[in-house]
Amino acid sequence: MPKLDSGTSIFTVMSKMAATHNAINLSQGFPNFPVDDRLTDIVSRIVKTNVHQYMPSAGHVPLLEKIAGLVAENYGRITSPEEEILVTAGATQAIFTAIQALVEAGDEVLILDPAYDCYDAPVVLCGARPIHLSLNDDFSPDWDAIGRAVNSKTRMIITNNPHNPSGKTWREADFAALEDLLDKHPQLLVLSDEVYEFIAFERAHISVNQRERLRSRSVIMSSFGKSFHITGWKIGYVVAPADLMLDIKKVHQYLVFCVNSVAQAAISEYLDIVDLADLGTFYRTKRDRFRNLVKDTRFTLLPCEGSYFQVASYAEISDESDLDFTRKLVTQYGVAAIPLSVFHQSKKDDKLIRFCFAKDDDTLVKAAERLQF
Amino acid sequence: MPKLDSGTSIFTVMSKMAATHNAINLSQGFPNFPVDDRLTDIVSRIVKTNVHQYMPSAGHVPLLEKIAGLVAENYGRITSPEEEILVTAGATQAIFTAIQALVEAGDEVLILDPAYDCYDAPVVLCGARPIHLSLNDDFSPDWDAIGRAVNSKTRMIITNNPHNPSGKTWREADFAALEDLLDKHPQLLVLSDEVYEFIAFERAHISVNQRERLRSRSVIMSSFGKSFHITGWKIGYVVAPADLMLDIKKVHQYLVFCVNSVAQAAISEYLDIVDLADLGTFYRTKRDRFRNLVKDTRFTLLPCEGSYFQVASYAEISDESDLDFTRKLVTQYGVAAIPLSVFHQSKKDDKLIRFCFAKDDDTLVKAAERLQF
Ligand SMILES: CSCCC(=O)C(=O)O
Ligand SMILES: CSCCC(=O)C(=O)O
Repeated sequence: MPKLDSGTSIFTVMSKMAATHNAINLSQGFPNFPVDDRLTDIVSRIVKTNVHQYMPSAGHVPLLEKIAGLVAENYGRITSPEEEILVTAGATQAIFTAIQALVEAGDEVLILDPAYDCYDAPVVLCGARPIHLSLNDDFSPDWDAIGRAVNSKTRMIITNNPHNPSGKTWREADFAALEDLLDKHPQLLVLSDEVYEFIAFERAHISVNQRERLRSRSVIMSSFGKSFHITGWKIGYVVAPADLMLDIKKVHQYLVFCVNSVAQAAISEYLDIVDLADLGTFYRTKRDRFRNLVKDTRFTLLPCEGSYFQVASYAEISDESDLDFTRKLVTQYGVAAIPLSVFHQSKKDDKLIRFCFAKDDDTLVKAAERLQF
Repeated sequence: MPKLDSGTSIFTVMSKMAATHNAINLSQGFPNFPVDDRLTDIVSRIVKTNVHQYMPSAGHVPLLEKIAGLVAENYGRITSPEEEILVTAGATQAIFTAIQALVEAGDEVLILDPAYDCYDAPVVLCGARPIHLSLNDDFSPDWDAIGRAVNSKTRMIITNNPHNPSGKTWREADFAALEDLLDKHPQLLVLSDEVYEFIAFERAHISVNQRERLRSRSVIMSSFGKSFHITGWKIGYVVAPADLMLDIKKVHQYLVFCVNSVAQAAISEYLDIVDLADLGTFYRTKRDRFRNLVKDTRFTLLPCEGSYFQVASYAEISDESDLDFTRKLVTQYGVAAIPLSVFHQSKKDDKLIRFCFAKDDDTLVKAAERLQF
């Protein structure tokens, strides 16, 4: 009996199908435009210097300090970079490591569906129980349902803001509800997946790190892959209070020890010159362009407040299952997307699919043409 | 209660002490000489190309094929690169992932002391039990003790050849004994840590992959960090039969998804031009130089058959504990080393310390001077 009964990740499956059928790949979330020349210039230069051996397990010290600066400038504060920040091999490794460090056999962990697909495995491998609840229809957290589900065994709630796949962002009331929940349940922690923190549109991103009552009970994940269009680099970071971080680092040092040194040194320099304030505008323009291109199709577009994903309903086109519809879309129409049912433990099928619009304009235009049917 | 009761890894502690005391750092195992220009040239070039997004979860396909070629040329064979090879963020991530995938709560895992320090954590985090046995005094496996320790709950034995910290390599009889053990215990698997496979001296390295009866039950770890002097890149690989690999990949995709794309693309090219046959000679020369430089000190050098570590006894110098002696060595004499007791669960102290000789000649000369006391 394999310990995980999951199959192959949907992203692997869909990207492969896209390649096989020569389709435009709007499934797996990654940009297809070039990376900032200034960043690759840094790599070309520093690779000729002494950056090829182990970094400290928690991260390259200058990078930790610059991350602290970035956090302070934007969404919160850091008291001690070396105690409260950990550089990880992407947010996925961060999530896996934090769960392994903080969740014990018999614990329960709340996951709000539709949810990104990497939260369950580390919980199951701990011998803990993932408890899946549905988000509201507008993808906001259903605080009544959450309140009923939390009990003395609930060790962690996993939140994701801006939300993948829906792009939904949290309201003030959501943070207040989370605070009340933590007040009522002293053992409860928050794992706050904020990898799209710099990709929020009409509303500025709010981090749990900005809320005093949340900060001390929250482990926050971020991703340079998303923020700098380098998903392949596999580099992200965790922000957590020193006491939780101590336990996370114990697992991290035996799980991977440290993260790619060239990437750490390069991003450390790049943070001096890059302005992340532009990123929201950049992706907002892409979102608007994509929505505009697709508006005359028979797809109905849902709101998109952040992330680089656009959810669309195909209910007016077909009553096939979203798996079948997605398969048809990639094989017959040449566009790969992600069916939302895969993000629901219940496999709930609302005739919704997700497109990634982190693509050059040419790709978006061509994809939209193929969606006119 | 933290889930791991371990403190900070000895390598972090010692490298920090070395820096604080301005000591020559022969503790943590990493080279201090420049990396091959041909490899860094490749990086400078390919970073300007389209290599910045996610690779397939199992690894960049050309890299998988070249690893298969490398294995075939040297130590065994691969039937299907895509099914039997997995690229990992270093051997540490490989070990963590394989154990999480294959070991269940209640299982036992045999670890042979002195042992590298990353084997316990993933076993404990699975809810399984690490069972520590001592190697013989010459660091060969004690097959009688192992035979007595294995029972129906023993899921895995972790082997390490060439051995860190001792440099011991396996004999024909060790492989035969392991075969017998597997024959007797159908549930037993081998995790074979062979990260120093290309650093073996008088005897050619033998991999479990070369032995038909072992191959189908073994998960083998290797490390480009060690083989190409790039420990900071955090890139290694696993070779395992397809059925075991299937379970390992399920965990891998949710633990890290994939490995740094620039590193994968660069090493894939580099494997076309690099000759690993020279590596043994290179480190053998280093070993001989270091042994020669230290031979007139009061340290007694143990045999070193592989790896880039030299174990020495200080019994003639002091009867302090190896922790105290190592502390004195770094603070008063300016040389950082690793005390062997940290590699024993029992903290057994045989007055032995480990030096890393993967250093330029100048460093080795200076270190040896400081050891003349
Ligand atoms: C690790 S592949 C998935 C990338 C992603 O974040 C998404 O498509 O949702
Ligand atoms: C990950 S730091 C330890 C490096 C190493 O392999 C050793 O020193 O034994």
